[in-house]
Amino acid sequence: MSGLNQRPLLLTQGDPAGIGPELSLRAWLERDRASLPPFAVIGDPDHFARVADTFGWTIPIAPVEPQQIQSAFSSTLPVIPLSVSVSAEPGTHDAANAPSVIEAIETAVRLVRAGSAAAVVTNPIAKHVLYKAGFRHPGHTEFLAALAAKGSEETYYPVMMLWSEQLAVVPVTVHIPLSDVPSALTTDLIVLTGRIVARELRERFGIANPRLALAGLNPHAGENGAMGTEDETIIVPAIDILRAEGIQVAGPLPADTMFHAHARSRYDAALAMYHDQALIPIKTIAFDEAVNVTLGLSFVRTSPDHGTAFDIAGKGIARPDSLMAALKLAARLGRP
Amino acid sequence: MSGLNQRPLLLTQGDPAGIGPELSLRAWLERDRASLPPFAVIGDPDHFARVADTFGWTIPIAPVEPQQIQSAFSSTLPVIPLSVSVSAEPGTHDAANAPSVIEAIETAVRLVRAGSAAAVVTNPIAKHVLYKAGFRHPGHTEFLAALAAKGSEETYYPVMMLWSEQLAVVPVTVHIPLSDVPSALTTDLIVLTGRIVARELRERFGIANPRLALAGLNPHAGENGAMGTEDETIIVPAIDILRAEGIQVAGPLPADTMFHAHARSRYDAALAMYHDQALIPIKTIAFDEAVNVTLGLSFVRTSPDHGTAFDIAGKGIARPDSLMAALKLAARLGRP
Repeated sequence: MSGLNQRPLLLTQGDPAGIGPELSLRAWLERDRASLPPFAVIGDPDHFARVADTFGWTIPIAPVEPQQIQSAFSSTLPVIPLSVSVSAEPGTHDAANAPSVIEAIETAVRLVRAGSAAAVVTNPIAKHVLYKAGFRHPGHTEFLAALAAKGSEETYYPVMMLWSEQLAVVPVTVHIPLSDVPSALTTDLIVLTGRIVARELRERFGIANPRLALAGLNPHAGENGAMGTEDETIIVPAIDILRAEGIQVAGPLPADTMFHAHARSRYDAALAMYHDQALIPIKTIAFDEAVNVTLGLSFVRTSPDHGTAFDIAGKGIARPDSLMAALKLAARLGRP
Repeated sequence: MSGLNQRPLLLTQGDPAGIGPELSLRAWLERDRASLPPFAVIGDPDHFARVADTFGWTIPIAPVEPQQIQSAFSSTLPVIPLSVSVSAEPGTHDAANAPSVIEAIETAVRLVRAGSAAAVVTNPIAKHVLYKAGFRHPGHTEFLAALAAKGSEETYYPVMMLWSEQLAVVPVTVHIPLSDVPSALTTDLIVLTGRIVARELRERFGIANPRLALAGLNPHAGENGAMGTEDETIIVPAIDILRAEGIQVAGPLPADTMFHAHARSRYDAALAMYHDQALIPIKTIAFDEAVNVTLGLSFVRTSPDHGTAFDIAGKGIARPDSLMAALKLAARLGRP
């Protein structure tokens, strides 16, 4: 994992008052035991040093240029410095931190697009804090998609995958009210999502013939129209189109019986029609280890599957499992 | 479990062309190894003898009266005979079987209401087969509720619980299209369901102070109205009413983070707002062992959490795990 010829990962600070900085430090302390790939955090070196001091951790912090990350990583935590300094208090969210949060993300995307890094891993941010400071993107992922396209002719449709060793799920609709799901769900949206998932399973996960499983929207996948029509009118046509493109697709499957161990062995990724249909199964079986992967961008981005957790920031009780899993998956999927 | 002073269980044949008869026979063969409580099937003794012959199983079939079940069970499979004979072909559904399916259920309810049995366990039926024969109830459970009330002043609101050792879930709305869920979900319905669940957890499961957890309807339980309003307008008022009645209730909880092992340890039963929100987590972690329990009737009814499985009936590959779990749970919850 840590060959000097491999490009390193870039880890954004996230909200500096959340658990991101302490988890980043903890992950670095675990780098040998957990065989973590080399990474640099993007943030204020002084802030990271202060957080380490709070916990009594002896962690040499090294401000670096991207090309120095590999050699610095074994003995120091490499930090790509921001142009602003950060004076965040753990647990106290403050719009004054917003410029540093945004600059860290912009820097990460600029460097990965320039080829200086294998992939981007993002620590959690708090949208409401950024909104107070004038941030106008719907969320973290949409901001990354805009930065990925900036100055180019490309547009990117970012697709959220939740990944763990046992199960990978993709919600086709995400952060909308449940009552909006039936109207938001279209054949086009399912096809677009399915294509991106199949392509990235091939190109990034190295699965030659990816197998997708599509959940039905209604109970028992609608029982041939007896309990809702969308399974027949919206999902079946999407499956037909994806299959015509040579993609292996099963479905629409009754959502309740497609996530147990034996059922999971039949597919590489499950497409769920809405947020909870995707996130309930993976968080039930892999709560601490699930990783959020953004597919569909020009680079790989992963993030831990939790938020800023202001309520426990600074207490040293947040678990770094998901961040470490995100770092490992980013190294596996990122460019060599 | 098998004390002679304990009332026996009654197990309906279910659709005689489905997997019910072979699973019932298999369960009896496993009675000692699995410490199953004494039960009688309600069906045609000759049909059960023929199914046993098909598989080469040596199972003495004993037509009995209810009071003979206890003493017969250790050496024979006790069968309470129907007034009709059954000539079903495994795997071939046939409306001609409908009268026997219905009589078995009616007999079970009559006997359990008369005090001759501890509880009723039902094998799966096929509604479409019964409908062809003129059956007019929406489903198995509604038929049981009608029979429970027949000739009395009572009405019963049956509540479906899916139970396993790890998790018990109750869907507040059940077999309706997903698009109908937001309008079908009312504060009254949640309160009615919550009351029945809390009462039966106390009275039948022996939990002195039951803890309920209520799932939110929307992603992240609506994030204070940012993603849907029903969590605040419908679920929160129901929680207030239940708490005012002295019931311990947590919620509305984000549905994706309430079903992992640590989260489950904080409650005795989870109320989900719709079918897949309840059934995804339990079938993901306990696919073969989950039991369907009907709460809210004047007697206990359990059933295996699978259907007639006509496609594998007669092949001897259906697993009796869920039926055996249903028998054990019925004995635990039934009247002494």
